[in-house]
Amino acid sequence: MPQAKPFFITVEGGDGSGKSTLITNIRAEFAARGVPHLCTREPGGTPVAEEIRGILLKPGRTVVARAELLLYEAARAEHVDGVIRPALDRGVNVLCDRFTHSSIAYQGAARGLPKQLVEMANWVATGGFKVDSSGFKLGSGLGLDPDAVIWLRLSPAEARRRSRGRGDENRLDAEDSGFHERVFAAFEEMSRSSGRFIVLDASQDEKTVFNQLLAHPLWRKMFGSGK
Amino acid sequence: MPQAKPFFITVEGGDGSGKSTLITNIRAEFAARGVPHLCTREPGGTPVAEEIRGILLKPGRTVVARAELLLYEAARAEHVDGVIRPALDRGVNVLCDRFTHSSIAYQGAARGLPKQLVEMANWVATGGFKVDSSGFKLGSGLGLDPDAVIWLRLSPAEARRRSRGRGDENRLDAEDSGFHERVFAAFEEMSRSSGRFIVLDASQDEKTVFNQLLAHPLWRKMFGSGK
Repeated sequence: MPQAKPFFITVEGGDGSGKSTLITNIRAEFAARGVPHLCTREPGGTPVAEEIRGILLKPGRTVVARAELLLYEAARAEHVDGVIRPALDRGVNVLCDRFTHSSIAYQGAARGLPKQLVEMANWVATGGFKVDSSGFKLGSGLGLDPDAVIWLRLSPAEARRRSRGRGDENRLDAEDSGFHERVFAAFEEMSRSSGRFIVLDASQDEKTVFNQLLAHPLWRKMFGSGK
Repeated sequence: MPQAKPFFITVEGGDGSGKSTLITNIRAEFAARGVPHLCTREPGGTPVAEEIRGILLKPGRTVVARAELLLYEAARAEHVDGVIRPALDRGVNVLCDRFTHSSIAYQGAARGLPKQLVEMANWVATGGFKVDSSGFKLGSGLGLDPDAVIWLRLSPAEARRRSRGRGDENRLDAEDSGFHERVFAAFEEMSRSSGRFIVLDASQDEKTVFNQLLAHPLWRKMFGSGK
């Protein structure tokens, strides 16, 4: 039975949490079952967004926290209008590596910008506003919110060990451990207060993590049991 | 008598309005009178902001309106924290070629984003927010607002004739005339509703325009009569 509507799913988790592996497994599952899908990542997706990515991820770069937030949000606006919405409009499910919750965790909790500020910026980027006879409105539900947020939950200490083992280093890896603790705490809080989170225990092996996803009630509600 | 505090002055006006000439004349006046000053421009001012400028002003570039707004605001956050505030903190008057009012006119009125949205983005960029015991607040007066906004008022038709005469062409010049009409109307409205605007008739010759500035009550209140 074809889906009534396509889903927008975001995947969150730090470096070393197995995000790429999980996405590869989901792609294979969708391909095997003939589920139309598109995998994309933030920041990026359009020429302008890729240029912004280049600014943000340049090694050794120092960016004012508010500017960093606004750059991620600018890339997101390009990505939403240029890639994600067009795919959803064609009936294609979209799987996005990082989205609005990353901004709340990284630019909000970790860099210290107020959560309300980051939420507002998320709404601007995703088109979450309208103007009607009663005035200007901004908020969730008006723009593009994920149908599900998959969070690969891994303690910062374990994530750091894995990341070092891979020899990966980028600007975010270079942050102190307090930074990653704050990111982790923010995702813990968001996952507890939202019914759209699929929390996976990323300390397990990749097959177990993937099976945990396939068995999750929210995943099954969206994509069935796959049988 | 030294100033009690330095002033932050922005200069607004379309291409062909004589903005560069006026700024040159102000610099010469400040230099002759020994008034400490710094001239800067948007978007730009820090390495990150200059890279953003490169993205925004690339000829033929198409950017989603919300992304364009967020990019200008990201550059502004860098510029405010890296250049403008440090200068003001040293007691130096800052003269800035374009600032927050340009975003309201160009990204708001001309590109069609709601004015309230652009104002919010301006507050984020200029640090116009705080969190205290009563919660999160965002608004003018909390961040960096200009002490004076000099607007070189020139009809769009006249501005276009002048710009063509100079052989200047950039992305904004290429917009239709409706775009420039909306920018002009937005500045008209802002200048009428704010006591901080210094409106100069830019259809006059450069010497007359400059003398008009020097004679303006708000300018004289800030910098005296120059005698």
